[in-house]
Amino acid sequence: MKNGLKLPCKHSKTIQTRLVLPPDTNHLDTIFGGKVLAYIDEIAALAAMKHSNSAVVTASIDSVDFRSSAKVGDSLTIEGFVTYTGKTSMEVYVKVTAHNLITDRRALTTESFLTMVAVNEEGKPKPVPEVYPETEEESKIFKTASVRRENRMKRSSVKDS
Amino acid sequence: MKNGLKLPCKHSKTIQTRLVLPPDTNHLDTIFGGKVLAYIDEIAALAAMKHSNSAVVTASIDSVDFRSSAKVGDSLTIEGFVTYTGKTSMEVYVKVTAHNLITDRRALTTESFLTMVAVNEEGKPKPVPEVYPETEEESKIFKTASVRRENRMKRSSVKDS
Amino acid sequence: MKNGLKLPCKHSKTIQTRLVLPPDTNHLDTIFGGKVLAYIDEIAALAAMKHSNSAVVTASIDSVDFRSSAKVGDSLTIEGFVTYTGKTSMEVYVKVTAHNLITDRRALTTESFLTMVAVNEEGKPKPVPEVYPETEEESKIFKTASVRRENRMKRSSVKDS
Amino acid sequence: MKNGLKLPCKHSKTIQTRLVLPPDTNHLDTIFGGKVLAYIDEIAALAAMKHSNSAVVTASIDSVDFRSSAKVGDSLTIEGFVTYTGKTSMEVYVKVTAHNLITDRRALTTESFLTMVAVNEEGKPKPVPEVYPETEEESKIFKTASVRRENRMKRSSVKDS
Amino acid sequence: MKNGLKLPCKHSKTIQTRLVLPPDTNHLDTIFGGKVLAYIDEIAALAAMKHSNSAVVTASIDSVDFRSSAKVGDSLTIEGFVTYTGKTSMEVYVKVTAHNLITDRRALTTESFLTMVAVNEEGKPKPVPEVYPETEEESKIFKTASVRRENRMKRSSVKDS
Amino acid sequence: MKNGLKLPCKHSKTIQTRLVLPPDTNHLDTIFGGKVLAYIDEIAALAAMKHSNSAVVTASIDSVDFRSSAKVGDSLTIEGFVTYTGKTSMEVYVKVTAHNLITDRRALTTESFLTMVAVNEEGKPKPVPEVYPETEEESKIFKTASVRRENRMKRSSVKDS
Ligand SMILES: CC(C)(COP(=O)(O)OP(=O)(O)OC[C@H]1O[C@@H](n2cnc3c(N)ncnc32)[C@H](O)[C@@H]1OP(=O)(O)O)[C@@H](O)C(=O)NCCC(=O)NCCS
Ligand SMILES: CC(C)(COP(=O)(O)OP(=O)(O)OC[C@H]1O[C@@H](n2cnc3c(N)ncnc32)[C@H](O)[C@@H]1OP(=O)(O)O)[C@@H](O)C(=O)NCCC(=O)NCCS
Ligand SMILES: CC(C)(COP(=O)(O)OP(=O)(O)OC[C@H]1O[C@@H](n2cnc3c(N)ncnc32)[C@H](O)[C@@H]1OP(=O)(O)O)[C@@H](O)C(=O)NCCC(=O)NCCS
Ligand SMILES: CC(C)(COP(=O)(O)OP(=O)(O)OC[C@H]1O[C@@H](n2cnc3c(N)ncnc32)[C@H](O)[C@@H]1OP(=O)(O)O)[C@@H](O)C(=O)NCCC(=O)NCCS
Repeated sequence: MKNGLKLPCKHSKTIQTRLVLPPDTNHLDTIFGGKVLAYIDEIAALAAMKHSNSAVVTASIDSVDFRSSAKVGDSLTIEGFVTYTGKTSMEVYVKVTAHNLITDRRALTTESFLTMVAVNEEGKPKPVPEVYPETEEESKIFKTASVRRENRMKRSSVKDS
Repeated sequence: MKNGLKLPCKHSKTIQTRLVLPPDTNHLDTIFGGKVLAYIDEIAALAAMKHSNSAVVTASIDSVDFRSSAKVGDSLTIEGFVTYTGKTSMEVYVKVTAHNLITDRRALTTESFLTMVAVNEEGKPKPVPEVYPETEEESKIFKTASVRRENRMKRSSVKDS
Repeated sequence: MKNGLKLPCKHSKTIQTRLVLPPDTNHLDTIFGGKVLAYIDEIAALAAMKHSNSAVVTASIDSVDFRSSAKVGDSLTIEGFVTYTGKTSMEVYVKVTAHNLITDRRALTTESFLTMVAVNEEGKPKPVPEVYPETEEESKIFKTASVRRENRMKRSSVKDS
Repeated sequence: MKNGLKLPCKHSKTIQTRLVLPPDTNHLDTIFGGKVLAYIDEIAALAAMKHSNSAVVTASIDSVDFRSSAKVGDSLTIEGFVTYTGKTSMEVYVKVTAHNLITDRRALTTESFLTMVAVNEEGKPKPVPEVYPETEEESKIFKTASVRRENRMKRSSVKDS
Repeated sequence: MKNGLKLPCKHSKTIQTRLVLPPDTNHLDTIFGGKVLAYIDEIAALAAMKHSNSAVVTASIDSVDFRSSAKVGDSLTIEGFVTYTGKTSMEVYVKVTAHNLITDRRALTTESFLTMVAVNEEGKPKPVPEVYPETEEESKIFKTASVRRENRMKRSSVKDS
Repeated sequence: MKNGLKLPCKHSKTIQTRLVLPPDTNHLDTIFGGKVLAYIDEIAALAAMKHSNSAVVTASIDSVDFRSSAKVGDSLTIEGFVTYTGKTSMEVYVKVTAHNLITDRRALTTESFLTMVAVNEEGKPKPVPEVYPETEEESKIFKTASVRRENRMKRSSVKDS
């Protein structure tokens, strides 16, 4: 880590727009939830790599609710940025929006928080720069991060008991 | 739905063993979390389709913690079965185990609960048969299902507020 | 087409950030030119679909020079927007930048102009809204578009003779 | 090889259930034979790796007859286990069943025997543990293995003459 | 079928040269047998479609022996043509050669015979044009076709008994 | 390079016939331009590797016009060979033809010229054998190569200014 380095949320902002294709979908022409989850993880990894200049692994993904689906021919926009940092871990917020390019209708598909951990060549956790929020939206997410972090810890310990 | 039909958990049991290949992995030869999430969703879909004789969509996936990773050349076993049913929704439990085929070491990669909804040709929810547990493990998971269900509902309403 | 509708360049702006993975690369761990060309076409299609609210086909791609390469683990950012419109055709400018996420070094990989044509259900050309530039960069590209268009026409007729 | 080690057939039993997707199929929505062959090879490799704790290569596949087809949306179950062992080679039996998840109809798609060889880091054959049958089905297949082995040898020599 | 139409073997000749890429290979950088089988089936389908101007399905593949392997960076040439015709079925011969493009060494990877059946929109067998050999190699393969056909029939009936 | 070695155009001739599949196509069942561009690059790489017994990278692709499209179920034939050589660079001509296997109609999809550069293990340009034309078609393309080369150089310098 660059010593004492602090980086704004926007430094790690990553966007990916994709076209939904037949192999991504089921018989109803609706995208598989698993495809969306894989895209979310890819964006979270890119955002965390950008923030930490490091390889990363996914430690966890918070619960995901699929609010609306996307169809073949829709575009899907996946956006993410680092919202909070621990010593070696980064919380990343990812938002997925479907866009029907013919009717111009947009709909929130899902939102999620993931925890990515920076790792060295042996796969061991290594320190990351601190993140700080700038916009109002970023600040709101930043403030509630410690509550989410606590929930994750509780969750882990419950499962192990 | 077959009227009043009840099916045991084991009816929907679905197993998939896969070889971890280079395109599934990052620079550390470690599988992407997103790949694992996509496999989990595929098994949950297959289990729910088997239980409901119907097309299904993924409504939600509960939080997922990745406890250990899998490397190129490992085999990954993904197992799932329906654990609880509502009127149109099915809770599916999925467990992922990595197996190093050279050293014979196995490790739990992750466990998760998903909610799948049976849908008709128009994508509208349709009723599903009831599920009942037979083994001790199934009963334990079945009993705690309503708590998980409540948590999901709470979660939704928090996000919307 | 919405009658007489005019849309700014930025309306169709589309961005895709991707991680370069082993299957995209050759023995030197360098991305295949063909992969980059496919990403360029996908972005051009998305931008043109956004502009025209229509299905589109690729009519042509101007010459592409690959100035520097991208390696496994780099991120690749592909950006495009509609720069000029004819009756049924749209010129789209696409720029590809490689970003080494460990060293933070960025390099222009390539730039290109494509012509996309809006088509109806039978694959026949259909009218598109006009585009207008707003920023200086957009204006510069907009002004030189008619020269590029002429070159394309000349090119076609030479090949046919 | 673990010295003198003997392993039962069931030790290498491997199951993979998959959903048949559009890219696996032709215009009649029927799965390509080549896809089924690739799945058969993957399961045979996994079973042989499990049995030998070693990397393996495919030496041969016995003739395959496709008795019935599978359609988009069907599930396909591929099961295999080691049935017989030579010094460095393993015979693996693989069975493929299609399952229409809506009508619940199952049909045998095909069965096959493959010969896999355990190899070291240089790709040279290395010894494998012996296998022994336990169930009646396993015994029946085990007993006829030497005939199949002889046929394979005859076949090779015919082709070379 | 065009009434009484006869077509030479060369009419259906189909060639595919491919580059072996990392995702096609195992840990020893050696191509999976299953990949080669899938390529063989694709070429057989193309040759049979060319001969019959019809959709086709794979009825069977004769035993396949892998004589040598191919590595990442090799090119693989898969060639096939229709060698014999029944009423609705076509025998296709496929040959696979690996070519190390650096050392220029070529090696036969495998040869195989497949039976493809022309099918109508309902997937029912439909008549195909007759094939006739022209070169010496084609004549040799043509003459021995009826023996191979008999073996296939024997094989089927054995399995069914 | 083999000292002073000269190779005919036909030495590098490479052919690939493929079946157009659903994931290669858009809503109109028409193949994506980007797919065709990727196939063109693959063939150009194979032809240039064959000519130079070396790894290669794509330096540039000349403008490409798509004259007609290909549909799901068509076969696509991509053919290429080295047409001209500089010190380290090779010009490759690639032609793409679509073939409707049911109606037997063929149509030129596109033609293109690419420049491939032979590179050593460090990705640095290395000398290649000279090429010479034999047929009339080859001679015609060979003679006009220097004009195309000049255009490429002019193009580069314009962009850099
Ligand atoms: C994530 C992982 C590296 C953590 O390793 P560990 O030995 O627990 O390391 P530590 O206890 O030092 O924890 C490192 C950081 O991860 C965080 N973490 C660990 N498990 C977590 C979880 N389930 N959810 C959220 N954060 C978690 C810790 O809080 C700590 O954060 P901090 O440094 O900011 O305080 C390890 O569990 C792992 O490798 N998991 C598999 C990751 C993977 O391969 N995922 C892809 C698919 S399997
Ligand atoms: C592009 C295509 C629709 C043009 O059809 P056409 O019969 O030539 O139609 P038109 O003459 O009316 O031309 C329509 C527009 O395309 C433009 N156009 C045609 N060929 C072009 C080319 N090679 N380069 C740039 N623009 C071109 C015309 O200038 C015209 O633009 P305008 O309406 O803005 O003035 C047709 O050639 C086609 O379908 N090609 C295949 C497209 C495809 O499938 N691509 C993917 C891979 S093969
Ligand atoms: C191949 C298939 C169409 C044959 O159907 P059928 O009801 O047996 O039809 P018929 O008895 O009329 O046989 C049709 C032709 O196929 C041939 N055939 C059938 N089974 C065969 C086998 N296992 N091997 C070689 N040829 C075979 C018959 O000899 C006959 O040939 P002919 O017309 O030249 O004399 C049918 O078994 C099928 O659909 N199988 C699945 C094919 C498939 O989907 N493969 C891909 C992966 S599962
Ligand atoms: C192509 C590349 C190796 C050239 O490197 P360079 O430092 O310019 O090397 P040189 O000046 O010695 O040129 C080497 C040859 O390439 C040719 N060349 C360079 N740029 C070119 C271009 N845009 N178009 C055509 N030829 C070009 C030169 O004319 C020279 O040919 P010659 O030896 O036959 O006279 C370099 O630009 C590169 O690595 N680009 C990225 C290639 C790549 O990875 N492509 C895939 C997708 S990004």
